[in-house]
Amino acid sequence: MQTAVQAFRDHLAPIIDLRSAAAVLGWDQETYMPPGAVEARAAQLGTLGKLAHELFIADETAALLEMAQKEVEGMEYDSDEASLVRVARRDLEKATKLPSDLVEELARATSMAQQAWQEARAKADFGLFRPHLDRLLDLSLRKAGALGYEDHIYDALLDEYEPGMTKSELESVFDGLKSELVPIARAIAAVGNEAHLFLGSNYDAQSQWDFGVAIMRDFGFDFDRGRQDRSAHPFTTTFSINDVRVTTRIHDDFLPAGLFGSLHECGHALYEQGVSAGLERTLLADGASLGVHESQSRLWEILVGRSREFWAHYYEPLQDRFPDHLGGVDREQFYRAINKVEASLIRVESDEVTYNLHIMMRFDLEIDLLEERLAVADLPQAWNAKSEEYLGLVPGNDAEGVLQDIHWSLAAFGYFPTYALGNLMSVQFFDRAREEIPDLHGQIGRGEFGDLLRWLRDRIHRHGRKLTAGELLERTVGSELSAGPWLAHIRHKYSDLLGVGFR
Amino acid sequence: MQTAVQAFRDHLAPIIDLRSAAAVLGWDQETYMPPGAVEARAAQLGTLGKLAHELFIADETAALLEMAQKEVEGMEYDSDEASLVRVARRDLEKATKLPSDLVEELARATSMAQQAWQEARAKADFGLFRPHLDRLLDLSLRKAGALGYEDHIYDALLDEYEPGMTKSELESVFDGLKSELVPIARAIAAVGNEAHLFLGSNYDAQSQWDFGVAIMRDFGFDFDRGRQDRSAHPFTTTFSINDVRVTTRIHDDFLPAGLFGSLHECGHALYEQGVSAGLERTLLADGASLGVHESQSRLWEILVGRSREFWAHYYEPLQDRFPDHLGGVDREQFYRAINKVEASLIRVESDEVTYNLHIMMRFDLEIDLLEERLAVADLPQAWNAKSEEYLGLVPGNDAEGVLQDIHWSLAAFGYFPTYALGNLMSVQFFDRAREEIPDLHGQIGRGEFGDLLRWLRDRIHRHGRKLTAGELLERTVGSELSAGPWLAHIRHKYSDLLGVGFR
Repeated sequence: MQTAVQAFRDHLAPIIDLRSAAAVLGWDQETYMPPGAVEARAAQLGTLGKLAHELFIADETAALLEMAQKEVEGMEYDSDEASLVRVARRDLEKATKLPSDLVEELARATSMAQQAWQEARAKADFGLFRPHLDRLLDLSLRKAGALGYEDHIYDALLDEYEPGMTKSELESVFDGLKSELVPIARAIAAVGNEAHLFLGSNYDAQSQWDFGVAIMRDFGFDFDRGRQDRSAHPFTTTFSINDVRVTTRIHDDFLPAGLFGSLHECGHALYEQGVSAGLERTLLADGASLGVHESQSRLWEILVGRSREFWAHYYEPLQDRFPDHLGGVDREQFYRAINKVEASLIRVESDEVTYNLHIMMRFDLEIDLLEERLAVADLPQAWNAKSEEYLGLVPGNDAEGVLQDIHWSLAAFGYFPTYALGNLMSVQFFDRAREEIPDLHGQIGRGEFGDLLRWLRDRIHRHGRKLTAGELLERTVGSELSAGPWLAHIRHKYSDLLGVGFR
Repeated sequence: MQTAVQAFRDHLAPIIDLRSAAAVLGWDQETYMPPGAVEARAAQLGTLGKLAHELFIADETAALLEMAQKEVEGMEYDSDEASLVRVARRDLEKATKLPSDLVEELARATSMAQQAWQEARAKADFGLFRPHLDRLLDLSLRKAGALGYEDHIYDALLDEYEPGMTKSELESVFDGLKSELVPIARAIAAVGNEAHLFLGSNYDAQSQWDFGVAIMRDFGFDFDRGRQDRSAHPFTTTFSINDVRVTTRIHDDFLPAGLFGSLHECGHALYEQGVSAGLERTLLADGASLGVHESQSRLWEILVGRSREFWAHYYEPLQDRFPDHLGGVDREQFYRAINKVEASLIRVESDEVTYNLHIMMRFDLEIDLLEERLAVADLPQAWNAKSEEYLGLVPGNDAEGVLQDIHWSLAAFGYFPTYALGNLMSVQFFDRAREEIPDLHGQIGRGEFGDLLRWLRDRIHRHGRKLTAGELLERTVGSELSAGPWLAHIRHKYSDLLGVGFR
C-alpha cells in the first residue's frame, strides 16, 4: 500500500522534472545555443516555469501535504519523510502567497530589465537602466509585502536565498566584520605586494582545461555523473543528483580565471553530487541555502586551492605543463601571485580579503533602497560614496560602479549577502574539518582529498535541503554564524604571507 | 480583438514548447549527457511527454478548435490559419483515439524493448528480443485498431510517419521498383568495381569536421540558427525554426562516414530552417512527412554531394586538406570510390543503388507480421530468406540480420518505407529543379547552391506541415509518387560510371 508521503512525493516528482528540464534549457542557453534561438528559448522557459508553478500551487498539493503531514508526526526531524513535508510546506506557503500576476509581471519586467542593463552597462549610462530598476524595486516591495515578514521588509527577500536569515542577524555579523576588516585591508595595502606579471602570459587553453579537470577528478568530481563545458560566466547547474554540470571560462592571458573558476564551481558541484541518493527527484535534492552553497565553492577554491599546502603538490605538475611560463618562477612567488591583495572596483575580480567589502556596501545600499530612504535616481551617487567608504576607490563611470553586477536587473535583492555568508561559513566548516581530520593539511599537501570530501558529505552534502544553514552550523560546528574564524584565517594567512602583524 | 484562430494558436503554443523542451533533452542525451543520468532523463522525458499529451487532448483544445474551424471557413486552403486548423484536427483525432493506458504501455514496453534489443544485438541472439517484439507487435496491432483504417491495418501505422500514404500505393510503387532494380543491381555486381582503399587511411578528425562545416555553410545552413555536434548516430532535431541542431560522427579511418553524414543531416536541417517564420511555435513548424524529409537529406547528400559536378569544385580543397591521403588519387578515382555499389547485409552502410532493396524486404516482413501470417518466432528465418531474395546474401548471424535496426524495438512499424519514399521523391523534386534552374549543374560545379536552396524553400520548405507529401508532389512536380525518375537517375549515373548498359 502506498503511503501518504509516497503519494505526496509522487505528486511533486513531475514538478521537479519540469524544473530540471528548465535547468537543461538554461544550461544549453549559456553553453551551446545559437544566438538566433533567444526568443524561442525564452518562450520555452516561460512555459516550463509557469506549468511547474501551476502544478505546485494546485489544490491537490495542499491536500496531499495535509495527509503526509499527519503521517510524519513523530518521525525523526531529519528523516527523509519529515524533512520533505517540512520543506514542502515552507515552499508552498511562499509560492501560494505570491499572486500569479505579480509572478508574471516580475518575469516580464526582469526579462526587459536584463536587456536594458546590458545596454546601460555597455554604454556606462545608468539612465538607461533607471526606469527598469525603479519598476523592479517597486515590484520587489510588493513581493516582500505579499510574502510577509516579522521585523524588516528585507527579511522577506533574503529568505528566498538564505532561509531563516534576517537583516538584523546580518547587520550584527557585518558590523563586527567591517570594523575589523577595513583596517586589515588598509594594513595590507600599506605593505603593498608586487604585481606578478607572469600570470599574464599566453597559456594554452587545452592545457589549462586539462589541468583543471585533473584537479577536479582529484577533488572527487564524478565525471560519470556530471561534466564541464565552457561559458561566458562560470556556473553550476543540476538536472539530477546524477547529472551536475559545471562551466568555466578560459583566458589564455590569465591563468587564474579558468583554474580557480573550475575549482570554485567544482566545490558547488561536489555538494550537489553528494546529496543522498534517496532524495533524488524531490524538493530536498538541492543545497541548504545559497550561503552554504557558496561555503562549499569557496572552501575548495580558496581554503584548499589557494593554500600553500595545495601548491606544494600541484605546482610542479603546473610547471611541467607550462615550462616556458613558470619554469623560472618559484613556488612561493606563484603562491603570492595567486593571493595578491588589492582593493579594486570590480567585485568578481576581487581577492578574498576585499571581497566581503564589496558585499557589505551592496547590503547597505539594498537596505536603503528597500526602506525607501534612497531613491533609485540617487543610487549612482550613493554607490560611489559607499565605494569610497569601503574600498577607498571611486569608480570612473557607472559601468565599473553601480552597473557592474547583473543581480539587480534580476530583481535579486537579498542575494549579495549570501556571498559573504559563504566566505564566513567556509572557514567555520573548514576549521572543524581540520580538528576532526588531524592530518588534513598533510593530505592536501599530497593531493589527497578523500577524507575531506567524506567529511563534507557526511556533515553537509548528504542532507540536501533537509537542514537550514543555521542547523548545519549548529550540528557541525556547534555555534552560530560568525565572522571570527574567517577574520582569524585572513590574519593568519596574510601576516604569514606578507610578514606584517595585524591589530 | 483576438481571433478564434489566434486563441487556438495560443492554446497550442505551450504544448509546442513542451515538445521542444523534450527535444532539447533528447539532443543532450545523445551528445553531452553523462552516463549516470540515464534514469533521471527518462523520468524527465516521461513527464514532458505526458504533460504535452494531456494538454493536447484536453477538452479545451477541441472547443477552441471548433471555434477556429468556423473562422477559417472560406479561407485559402494553404493559408496559415486554415492549415493550422486542418492539421491540428488530424493530429487531435489521432491523439484522442489512443487510450491513455495504451500510450503509457507502449512507452514502457518500448523502453524495455530497446534495452533488450541492444543486448540481443550485442550477443547476436534473437531469442532475447523475441518476447519483447511479440509484445510490441501485439500493442501495435491494438494501436492500429484504435487509430482505425479503411483498407489495411498497415495504413494506420504508416500514416503516423507518412500521412495519407497507404500499403496499396506503396505496393504498386515497390512492385515496379523491385522488378527493375534487382536486375540493375545484378548487372552492376556482374561488372564489379574495385575497392578504393585510400578512403580507409587515417584522416585528421578536426580537418574532416572543418571540411564538412565549410560545405554546410556553402549549402546555406545558418549557424546563427543552428549548430553541429558529435553523437554516436547522426541525427537532426529542431527546437525552433531558429534552432536546428544536427549531429555527425567522425571516423578517422573512413572519410565518407562523417562527411556524407554531415551533408545528409544538413539536408534535413535546411528543410527545418526554411519553414516560414510565421509558423514558429505551431504544429506546422515541421516537415510534411518523414518521406519528404528524407527526400531533402538525400537530395543534398547524394544528388548534390555524390555527383561528379560537386567534386569538380570540392575535390581540390579536399586534396589540399589531406595531401598525404589524396594527393595521388585523381578526381575520377575518388568519385568512383564514393559511389561504389555492392550488395551488403547492413542497411545503413549500403550504397544508393541497393539501399531501397533493404527497405522493400523490411516492408514485406512488416506486412506479413501485421497480417499475422508470420509469427515473431519465425522472423529470423523469414528475414534470411528475404535477404537472399533481394540482396543475394544471407546473414551469418542475427546481429547482421534481423537485429540490425533499432526501429522495431521502438514499435515503429511503418517507418522503414519512408526511407525509400525519400529516395524516390528526392529525384522527382531534383529533376524539376533542374528544369527550372537551367544552369543548376554548372552552379553545383562552382559550389553555388543559392538558386537550388531558394527553389526548395519556395516549393517545399516554407510550407512546413501545411501540405502533405502528395500535395507537394502534385504542386511541384505535377505528378504522383513514382519510382521512374529514380530508376532513370540510377541507370544514367551508373551506366556512365561503370560503362555498362542496363535493360
